[in-house]
Amino acid sequence: MKTAILLLHCPDKLGIIAELTKFITDNNGNIVYLDQYVDTVDKMFFMRIEWELDGFRIPQDKIEEYFRTLYCSRYDIVFNVYFSDVKPRMAIFVSKMSHCLYDLLARYKAGEMDVEIPCIVSNHENLRYVAEQFGIPYYVWSIAADHSNKAEVEKAEMELLERERVDFIVLARYMQIITDGMIARYPHNIINIHHSFLPAFVGAKPYDQAYKRGVKIVGATSHYVTAELDAGPIIEQDVVRISHKDTPESLALKGRDLEKIVLSRAVKKHVERKVLTFNNKTIIFS
Amino acid sequence: MKTAILLLHCPDKLGIIAELTKFITDNNGNIVYLDQYVDTVDKMFFMRIEWELDGFRIPQDKIEEYFRTLYCSRYDIVFNVYFSDVKPRMAIFVSKMSHCLYDLLARYKAGEMDVEIPCIVSNHENLRYVAEQFGIPYYVWSIAADHSNKAEVEKAEMELLERERVDFIVLARYMQIITDGMIARYPHNIINIHHSFLPAFVGAKPYDQAYKRGVKIVGATSHYVTAELDAGPIIEQDVVRISHKDTPESLALKGRDLEKIVLSRAVKKHVERKVLTFNNKTIIFS
Amino acid sequence: MKTAILLLHCPDKLGIIAELTKFITDNNGNIVYLDQYVDTVDKMFFMRIEWELDGFRIPQDKIEEYFRTLYCSRYDIVFNVYFSDVKPRMAIFVSKMSHCLYDLLARYKAGEMDVEIPCIVSNHENLRYVAEQFGIPYYVWSIAADHSNKAEVEKAEMELLERERVDFIVLARYMQIITDGMIARYPHNIINIHHSFLPAFVGAKPYDQAYKRGVKIVGATSHYVTAELDAGPIIEQDVVRISHKDTPESLALKGRDLEKIVLSRAVKKHVERKVLTFNNKTIIFS
Amino acid sequence: MKTAILLLHCPDKLGIIAELTKFITDNNGNIVYLDQYVDTVDKMFFMRIEWELDGFRIPQDKIEEYFRTLYCSRYDIVFNVYFSDVKPRMAIFVSKMSHCLYDLLARYKAGEMDVEIPCIVSNHENLRYVAEQFGIPYYVWSIAADHSNKAEVEKAEMELLERERVDFIVLARYMQIITDGMIARYPHNIINIHHSFLPAFVGAKPYDQAYKRGVKIVGATSHYVTAELDAGPIIEQDVVRISHKDTPESLALKGRDLEKIVLSRAVKKHVERKVLTFNNKTIIFS
Repeated sequence: MKTAILLLHCPDKLGIIAELTKFITDNNGNIVYLDQYVDTVDKMFFMRIEWELDGFRIPQDKIEEYFRTLYCSRYDIVFNVYFSDVKPRMAIFVSKMSHCLYDLLARYKAGEMDVEIPCIVSNHENLRYVAEQFGIPYYVWSIAADHSNKAEVEKAEMELLERERVDFIVLARYMQIITDGMIARYPHNIINIHHSFLPAFVGAKPYDQAYKRGVKIVGATSHYVTAELDAGPIIEQDVVRISHKDTPESLALKGRDLEKIVLSRAVKKHVERKVLTFNNKTIIFS
Repeated sequence: MKTAILLLHCPDKLGIIAELTKFITDNNGNIVYLDQYVDTVDKMFFMRIEWELDGFRIPQDKIEEYFRTLYCSRYDIVFNVYFSDVKPRMAIFVSKMSHCLYDLLARYKAGEMDVEIPCIVSNHENLRYVAEQFGIPYYVWSIAADHSNKAEVEKAEMELLERERVDFIVLARYMQIITDGMIARYPHNIINIHHSFLPAFVGAKPYDQAYKRGVKIVGATSHYVTAELDAGPIIEQDVVRISHKDTPESLALKGRDLEKIVLSRAVKKHVERKVLTFNNKTIIFS
Repeated sequence: MKTAILLLHCPDKLGIIAELTKFITDNNGNIVYLDQYVDTVDKMFFMRIEWELDGFRIPQDKIEEYFRTLYCSRYDIVFNVYFSDVKPRMAIFVSKMSHCLYDLLARYKAGEMDVEIPCIVSNHENLRYVAEQFGIPYYVWSIAADHSNKAEVEKAEMELLERERVDFIVLARYMQIITDGMIARYPHNIINIHHSFLPAFVGAKPYDQAYKRGVKIVGATSHYVTAELDAGPIIEQDVVRISHKDTPESLALKGRDLEKIVLSRAVKKHVERKVLTFNNKTIIFS
Repeated sequence: MKTAILLLHCPDKLGIIAELTKFITDNNGNIVYLDQYVDTVDKMFFMRIEWELDGFRIPQDKIEEYFRTLYCSRYDIVFNVYFSDVKPRMAIFVSKMSHCLYDLLARYKAGEMDVEIPCIVSNHENLRYVAEQFGIPYYVWSIAADHSNKAEVEKAEMELLERERVDFIVLARYMQIITDGMIARYPHNIINIHHSFLPAFVGAKPYDQAYKRGVKIVGATSHYVTAELDAGPIIEQDVVRISHKDTPESLALKGRDLEKIVLSRAVKKHVERKVLTFNNKTIIFS
């Protein structure tokens, strides 16, 4: 059953749910999902509403226009409309570690993730065999040690992403900083996995930092990439208990299981259009 | 700010949210909380809605009547209305272990739990000192080893509960079976803590059972008491990791922390009117 | 650095650690790992000790004999010796679901799991493509609906396992009962993943059972297969929090992540020779 | 049964376990607990060994001397000996929040914690009623807003601690910085609970910081107090999952349950002599 999904936020106002659900039901839309949340601190209203398009009076390609005209300025609404029959196109960026890549591709292959994957991008040849196992094109641009060709590489990558009409990017343990140009082109559409419980252990070698500090629990954090390093809106986190017996190496090994699970959960929520961002934080619908 | 809370469920139907929120807002009620859930398997709709009474057009003592008349038969709604200025009256039943009792009373004393506690009931004298520390009346009825006086004891307890206008009962490690008479008098208003991850290890000595089976995790479960032992609707569960090094004694000790936290979370959700029961399961609003 | 690993248990006795570590160090063995555990309930002693073979006075192929002669009858010791340069040979049995298989193979490929995988066995063709992606022979024996060919199939499987010198079997969501003959041939060497928090929800369709019971947490359990269904020694368990919003389908999806992680952790512990079994329970060394 | 407990660490060396266990068993000591750990990064050896004093050849008051003479310089050992019949004396410092204090006292009263509690110290009168409920002397020294009397107050506190022969101090949500003088007097004997998952959110108002950052999990950390704020050796940590629906207030409320459990676990480990510190980290024996 084909559905439309409306994700929106606006200043909270009396009767807004009644008004918006009325818009759907008055036009003969059968609501199959509704979740809303009021941020009582910032006085903001957030909603995800999904309804069946079959029998809906407004044609699919006019929904966005009608909704904008009828409600946007009136309620100061920021929104997006998605349709269940349009699969988002996802690019995966990797470096040398395979665990997150395998996890994403295994889910994709098993039908767990409703996306197209037109390309895998890397700065190393190492994981070409994985891409080949799954029959997905693999592109490599080496980055010079002095980063002298960084701008050039990113230009080539952006051209590829344009050509392949990529909607969002997953950094599956891609060990390079993304520059502001690419971030600006894909706002809140680049998902990273950081191998620590942010904001603890920002930056390089978080497992070494965790070992040195002697923490009893380590974590992983998936977040949208923003201009400030490891400081974007957090989508998902999880942790695992460790002990004094763990070395930096055993931490890294335990962490891998966290990283892949946390990244996949975040990607899934993003693909299902269940993530809203506001004030550098996320609202995650269930 | 005084509020009314409406907890309801009914068969799911197009436009029901719009209709019900309209009832509040049209009568000038400011909705401060709305959470709803559609059970797509059983086609049922569940809602918790809370609004400020100040300025609401329908007088407080008429809300229940108006709502019943206007909506109940039309939508086949089962509902309850609560008011934020009416504190539920809670009785605590205990036997010999103090940890759950202390936890509940410490929260009560710290203002974390919006209840009245008119009485603590026990089958033993052991915890009278705790009741006295907190200045709460403590009643003891010993139960004969052959249970010959059970009916008589429960009759006396029921009289106390009536006299004290008790709304709900918390069994804080009360090691006696509650009979059907009392359960029928307080349907879904008796909260128990079972010291296992139900449905594993139903019945007596769950930590011994867990030790014997060699599980790697133990749990605690808080549920409403129904006629079938340890089989009522589950409100809250939590677990803790154990190892082969644990003995039945160390399990019991670790379990205590779970028990008190899980029980308190359940009681809190109940007191906040955030628990709905349907088909021997709970819907827990956030 | 090549090492020997001694896994043993015996009745607890004064001075046994001193005696056994002396055996290694007096013969010039450098101990790199020692973990021991005394079960104070059953008065049993368990130990895992690992030492470098380089410079050890007793030749590798005599260690077992010497240890048996010098200590076994004296202390009533049950033991096994393993060598770090002998990789265990693991067979994987699957049916139709790919997540556990992919997870095991991705780890194997990434060098996380020190095993040989000579074969994958199935009762269906479905996952042949995964085996082919990783270049591992895939064998299919269909099992008749009436199980009439079950004995014959298992005979063929056992011949394959013999021929491939398989040391242990991993049931990676293999949806068939293993018969007593195969269990007897591989005692505590068949590892299963059950998709519930055992002993809750033994048998078929645990996620449906969990949904019906309304639990707030679901789990997965990896255990050695014994003659009694889902009742063998538990190696590893983990859980994930769910809510009333979950359907049997979403439970199954959430459960998959648990299943693969829990199974892989169990396999890893087994491969590292860190699991001892006693009285239908496991001792897991760290 | 009276026991001696030896906690030690030294550079790792071949045969050291054999040697040390031999010291106990040769002198007719029955070892009831042995746990050891080798830090392979720093090449250090850590051990906790406990044995029955009944029948042990070395008199109780000579054990420390004999052990120092026979082994310390030879193996470069740092050690402490404790006896099971000497209860550590614990002071509790509090400010205005009661949850950690109640949790500690409830356990103490239930016999879960083998300590003496000669005094509770505070900078406010607020929790005197709790101390009185449990019959424990309560001392208040107000601290001036400009901290002008801080030195004087700490002097008075130190005199009290000396007079009461306090062995270690628990800061149960004591909202004051401890000065270096007191830290130096009780090295690794002051246990604090910080209401965040350290090293995230060091310093003031961690729940506000967590809310602002939009984390999906919050934690609590119990650690020994050292001169650097919130940077001492971590004894125990735990976390709880939160969501975008949480406010700073609800975080604080959820956090309380973590704080009291994490602090109590840490205190218990300390009291059982199962914590060793090295390089600003802890080794926690099981």
